[in-house]
Amino acid sequence: MSSPSIYLAVIGVGGVGTCFLSQVSSLPSRLRPTLIFLSRSSKQLYNTSYSPVSPSDLQSSTSKLLSIPDELVTYLSSAPGKVILVDNTSSQDVANAYPSFLKKGISVVTPNKKAFSGSLQLWNDIFSAVEQANGKAMVYHESSVGAGLPVISTLKDLVATGDQVTRIEGVFSGTMSFLFNSFAPVDGTGNGKWSEIVKQAKEAGYTEPDPRDDLNGMDVARKLTILARLAGLKVQGPDSFPVQSLIPKELESAKSSEDFMAQLPKFDEQMESYKSQAAAQNKVVRYVGSVDVGKGEVKVGLEMVEKGSPIAGLKGSDNLICFYTKRYGANPLVIQGAGAGGEVTAMGVTADLIKVVERLG
Amino acid sequence: MSSPSIYLAVIGVGGVGTCFLSQVSSLPSRLRPTLIFLSRSSKQLYNTSYSPVSPSDLQSSTSKLLSIPDELVTYLSSAPGKVILVDNTSSQDVANAYPSFLKKGISVVTPNKKAFSGSLQLWNDIFSAVEQANGKAMVYHESSVGAGLPVISTLKDLVATGDQVTRIEGVFSGTMSFLFNSFAPVDGTGNGKWSEIVKQAKEAGYTEPDPRDDLNGMDVARKLTILARLAGLKVQGPDSFPVQSLIPKELESAKSSEDFMAQLPKFDEQMESYKSQAAAQNKVVRYVGSVDVGKGEVKVGLEMVEKGSPIAGLKGSDNLICFYTKRYGANPLVIQGAGAGGEVTAMGVTADLIKVVERLG
Repeated sequence: MSSPSIYLAVIGVGGVGTCFLSQVSSLPSRLRPTLIFLSRSSKQLYNTSYSPVSPSDLQSSTSKLLSIPDELVTYLSSAPGKVILVDNTSSQDVANAYPSFLKKGISVVTPNKKAFSGSLQLWNDIFSAVEQANGKAMVYHESSVGAGLPVISTLKDLVATGDQVTRIEGVFSGTMSFLFNSFAPVDGTGNGKWSEIVKQAKEAGYTEPDPRDDLNGMDVARKLTILARLAGLKVQGPDSFPVQSLIPKELESAKSSEDFMAQLPKFDEQMESYKSQAAAQNKVVRYVGSVDVGKGEVKVGLEMVEKGSPIAGLKGSDNLICFYTKRYGANPLVIQGAGAGGEVTAMGVTADLIKVVERLG
Repeated sequence: MSSPSIYLAVIGVGGVGTCFLSQVSSLPSRLRPTLIFLSRSSKQLYNTSYSPVSPSDLQSSTSKLLSIPDELVTYLSSAPGKVILVDNTSSQDVANAYPSFLKKGISVVTPNKKAFSGSLQLWNDIFSAVEQANGKAMVYHESSVGAGLPVISTLKDLVATGDQVTRIEGVFSGTMSFLFNSFAPVDGTGNGKWSEIVKQAKEAGYTEPDPRDDLNGMDVARKLTILARLAGLKVQGPDSFPVQSLIPKELESAKSSEDFMAQLPKFDEQMESYKSQAAAQNKVVRYVGSVDVGKGEVKVGLEMVEKGSPIAGLKGSDNLICFYTKRYGANPLVIQGAGAGGEVTAMGVTADLIKVVERLG
């Protein structure tokens, strides 16, 4: 069966969504499902005859908005074929609706971390819906950790084939990677004070519009939650384990991003002290996440790492993920590369889409 | 549909095959196909009613030997369900038969490099059979490069989603990695003369029984052939591009492995000279394979690499594979870890088996 009988619904046409639609349009027809629903903020594009829609018509669409999930589930589950929903948002509301889609046989592909790092109840609801669907509906979320890097698929393969994952460790944020590779490079130099580096990174677009959304560590905590759960730990959520925020306590009440940035230089000394403590031990300071599967411990925060270690040697805004397992022994399986960006995130989504099409086809 | 209606035939029960059978026996029943054929050298185990066979009965089996491929294809294509053939040998003959199996709707999963690094004709025959099968028979071969490391799947995802792979580079042999990490570590020391290190590696089981099978570079050349073809190059075979053998010309006629090892110390000076040439440039010597996709160039041999580079910093017998692509830009997507060993090779095979079961199920 070729893919024209498989239907595609896409929510979200921001940076990742735009790259994704472009990548999908270049797939060979046997792997390219028929786009029947597309939405962004307050616009939706679809028709009741399930004929293909074109992304270029979204802006001018006057379609009545379907409620998500109820009306969208109803619309998609009446499609004359199997349906894949791609959620390119970072919305918790859309994530909460995955079980409703899956229960109706609609597969889900997404880079959205919220579904897998939210409540353990939602996680359980999603994966029990997948199990009950018995191969008719599935969920793929490679890009929820490390963008297109093969992180989720590798961890799943390790677990599924019976390896024992003992420890997962790495740098899981492109922003944190960039900040620390600039602030405390291995050669002992540095590109300035901490607050200056944060400022430069913000101006260069390496941080979220409000850098506090990176510095609070929650993005990394969400990724660790996902990996820890895949490795078998029943983690309640990203706030159920120690996460070191790099927002100084005194600045937690800063009213705006600007206010925060203006006051940040007052705390440069504190970061400088971490840097020199590390240097005194011939180490460098990095923002590291780790899961100790045996002890059931997850943590995120600053660590002093050996100068010769792969984490210390990272370049630019690269991520690095080490899987220590029984089979791999002392030397971990390591995956490294860009862990953010529209094209590489979309690549993980498109590759997942292909896998679902191949399984449904 | 659950997997008891999917059937499994396994050829080869050596190191990898034994680990594979053990891993498969631990899979949940929905992912575990029914074993109906098992063979090693001059023994085969099967029955005409296609009822399950048990690996422990192989040694005492008195089944009439089926010819491969003809009689085995006939036997398997009459099974009352879909069939997956797992080839855990390194046999060229078995590899040559893949198109015959695929044409009859029998999927193939294998770590055997021979099918994908042999003649371009065989490669084309295999992949045109897969295309004609239109999703009913497929071929997966993750462990043909880097054992269980996600090398093949990552490269396929990059290509399938439309990225442009510009360069592939790395250390593709656990043996070569071990030899050079011992001979010329980054700290400038070393564990002795080249011939002594080869001898120690042989005694520790890090080389093939005859170390010349590693030192001739053909294993690496085969892996590069596979990667280059997946990246789109029409490579004729592993002898169609420059491969530097580390067997000195004068020793090519050595009559035996023992004879070779006895004479190797005469050439220590040559390797020592490479080492000091590299050191003079603040580099180290490594055995590297690379594919330049744009130029259509593949090569394998000694290279002087920067001390700070990931290749120079490898430990033990780890492999390292860098994918440079348009989307990943200046910093490659890197995969690193053990690239040989029974359990990790079998893991790649088992993970592939699961994917095929999921697609057929």
